[in-house]
Amino acid sequence: MSLVKPTHTGYFFGLSIVTLAERLRAGNVTSVELTQAALDSIERLNPLLNAFVSVDAPVALALARKADALLAQGQDLGPLHGIPVAVKDNIDTFDYVTTYGSAHFDGFQPDHDALCVQRVREAGAVIIGKTLTHEFAYGPTGDRSLQGAARNPWDARCITGGSSAGSAAAVASGMVPLALGTDTGGSIRIPSALCGTVGFKPSFACVPVEGVFPLSSSLDHVGPIANHVEDARLLFEVLAGRACAPAANAQPLRVGWITSGSFGPVDAEVNRQVYQAAQQLFGDALQETDELQTMAAGMKDTLQTLQRAEAFEVHAERMRDAPHTFDPEVRERLEVSREVKGWQYIRAQASQAQYKAAMARLFERYDLLVSPSVPITATEVNAREVRVGEQDIDVRAAVLSHTSAWNLIGLPSISLPVGHVRGMPVGLQVIGAAGEDDRLLQVMSRLFVRG
Amino acid sequence: MSLVKPTHTGYFFGLSIVTLAERLRAGNVTSVELTQAALDSIERLNPLLNAFVSVDAPVALALARKADALLAQGQDLGPLHGIPVAVKDNIDTFDYVTTYGSAHFDGFQPDHDALCVQRVREAGAVIIGKTLTHEFAYGPTGDRSLQGAARNPWDARCITGGSSAGSAAAVASGMVPLALGTDTGGSIRIPSALCGTVGFKPSFACVPVEGVFPLSSSLDHVGPIANHVEDARLLFEVLAGRACAPAANAQPLRVGWITSGSFGPVDAEVNRQVYQAAQQLFGDALQETDELQTMAAGMKDTLQTLQRAEAFEVHAERMRDAPHTFDPEVRERLEVSREVKGWQYIRAQASQAQYKAAMARLFERYDLLVSPSVPITATEVNAREVRVGEQDIDVRAAVLSHTSAWNLIGLPSISLPVGHVRGMPVGLQVIGAAGEDDRLLQVMSRLFVRG
Repeated sequence: MSLVKPTHTGYFFGLSIVTLAERLRAGNVTSVELTQAALDSIERLNPLLNAFVSVDAPVALALARKADALLAQGQDLGPLHGIPVAVKDNIDTFDYVTTYGSAHFDGFQPDHDALCVQRVREAGAVIIGKTLTHEFAYGPTGDRSLQGAARNPWDARCITGGSSAGSAAAVASGMVPLALGTDTGGSIRIPSALCGTVGFKPSFACVPVEGVFPLSSSLDHVGPIANHVEDARLLFEVLAGRACAPAANAQPLRVGWITSGSFGPVDAEVNRQVYQAAQQLFGDALQETDELQTMAAGMKDTLQTLQRAEAFEVHAERMRDAPHTFDPEVRERLEVSREVKGWQYIRAQASQAQYKAAMARLFERYDLLVSPSVPITATEVNAREVRVGEQDIDVRAAVLSHTSAWNLIGLPSISLPVGHVRGMPVGLQVIGAAGEDDRLLQVMSRLFVRG
Repeated sequence: MSLVKPTHTGYFFGLSIVTLAERLRAGNVTSVELTQAALDSIERLNPLLNAFVSVDAPVALALARKADALLAQGQDLGPLHGIPVAVKDNIDTFDYVTTYGSAHFDGFQPDHDALCVQRVREAGAVIIGKTLTHEFAYGPTGDRSLQGAARNPWDARCITGGSSAGSAAAVASGMVPLALGTDTGGSIRIPSALCGTVGFKPSFACVPVEGVFPLSSSLDHVGPIANHVEDARLLFEVLAGRACAPAANAQPLRVGWITSGSFGPVDAEVNRQVYQAAQQLFGDALQETDELQTMAAGMKDTLQTLQRAEAFEVHAERMRDAPHTFDPEVRERLEVSREVKGWQYIRAQASQAQYKAAMARLFERYDLLVSPSVPITATEVNAREVRVGEQDIDVRAAVLSHTSAWNLIGLPSISLPVGHVRGMPVGLQVIGAAGEDDRLLQVMSRLFVRG
């Protein structure tokens, strides 16, 4: 996989924080210089990409100076020390306005950091700003928010995917080397696939969601977006508040390629490119598994019922008092969400438990499952239909189709950038067994070397 | 408290299973004789009271013969060995038809015993038949079921209360000394209060509900109905599958009398009688607490939301396919239940957690809380309004008003027969702190001696 470049790139394009950390410690660069490089890249690229919705140079440079001073005193806080990091704008920060992408929270200033942000701060990272989220994270396209649409670094006419739209665009374009995202149905993995970054959704409840604006409490996850798996792993350790357990170096022996079409239509070129990448990574371990086909529709319905009821619960008073302060598309989703019945929600909870059990049985026969992260490449901003093969399908349903099941099951799942189709990035999704976050990250960090 | 007698009584009226167990082991009576006495009492009284919906003399006598044979061989299974016990007809029994009080299950024969029945059987009890339940246990009056209305032993024109209608009537009248009931909003304690038995709702999840037809999974409880607290305690140990921990003999020092009216209107005579009984039992430890007043309405709404959504989930397909097979009153409740929204159910779950926390704080200042179990005496069968003071109130709302909060909170709660008002029994409800089932039973077994 050769390193094709997006139309415009920033300082951190393709860089690993492992390299940056070495340079910092060798005295070849300072955190202030890295932070200034990030600020310069943002200044240059953000007018085009709309990835950052809030940046504060003095705040960031003050953090960087502190990081440099600590390192000079021999106080090394670890691999994130002095590294510029972006935070999705649905995650609370005490020093940045946090809008959740919504006019309801225009200018809102939280009192406290989210717990995950606090951990990132304690690890010495320089929080450089907040990145665009689809309004209330309730949309997978990243083109509806208080601040408008984020733009894809590979073609600014196109969506980034969402809802962690700005985080993926910021890392993909090289404005920052690392960002925090959230993922309720694919919101880390979708923009990672469409923008060409590594995006990791950990196991459910592995990273605390305190201080993250809820979308759907039984499906919400926080995770890293990065250029490299190893970088994602290092940020994950900080977010989870623990070191990864060392994993055996063994090649995964049983990798299930989920039969194409199990989760809905897939663009033929995307499918070919992703399958080829999977073959290169896993060789003979790759075998086809058609066992998801019978479960896919039921898992989608179950997730939708849980998500709708939980999402409306969060917004009930706002929908009553100020419905027109929502983006019309988000409001329409909430209106549908209002109608889920209590008994249907209870059924969905029971179904979720059954699907989790079924998936645990499937993972007795596979080490990993793989599929495209997203079955298409990025569509144009505001487009809502896309032709896949012979069918016109809904863009939002399409981009969510391959990721959301793993929110329902709560399994660790990573999207890897495995090349381009028609000039736009495509992602390979690799799913691990329950609780096997460390193993998934370590195995993929070893196997997946970015071209 | 003098032992007033109901109009007609059976062999076991007022008897303790402790006494019966002594007689059995002294060779003064056999299990076959006790079982035959129960069968004779049922034959005589059941045409009037409609407490039992299914009795099988040969099955019961075979169990009794086996119990006698085991005792003769020196195999003593404990205090329930050889004792006739009745089981509410919403609890599965492999050897008795189990209708759940509904025409949907007319003639239904479960494959297996409920886990609680299995435990009672393994303790050597003689299961003598099934007792009337309000249809699907979804009603607190006990006068709507496939088998009609149960009748109050003290006045057969009146309701028993429900939904464990037949179990309370069977014990109160002396057909059996012990019965199993279930309680989702008061279904053990209400008929116990209205019929004059001891009825105990354990802490939530203390007794397994496997094999019990669900009404509302987050509120359902299984528990004993008996003549004496000690008998209830002995059956509870079997149901819970563990011996009670020994409790200190100390008198409770801080007993909170819940300010009358906190949970709705109370008949003045009932209030006087119950308060007087509480004074006799607790003396100076009794003090008034008005802290429930502000929570009562919210707790009721929360319980109702949980119960409705969960109840409809159980019956969704029956309501779609055969709505007219339900009793019209139960169907009407289910129609209302269908309309609870998912987001409201989620809110109610959150409220339940908050009320549990508030109640835990309250119990830091009290050992026990007490109130009337039911604010009125038994009304006439099919009556749906009752005058309390100056108000006409709904009978079903009235009988549930003082018990249902303790299902929401999941606290152990017992109804004690503390005399009569206008010739009909009234009950004192005593509520213990979370998980303090053993202490509540042991303290009340010592303090409360039936007149």
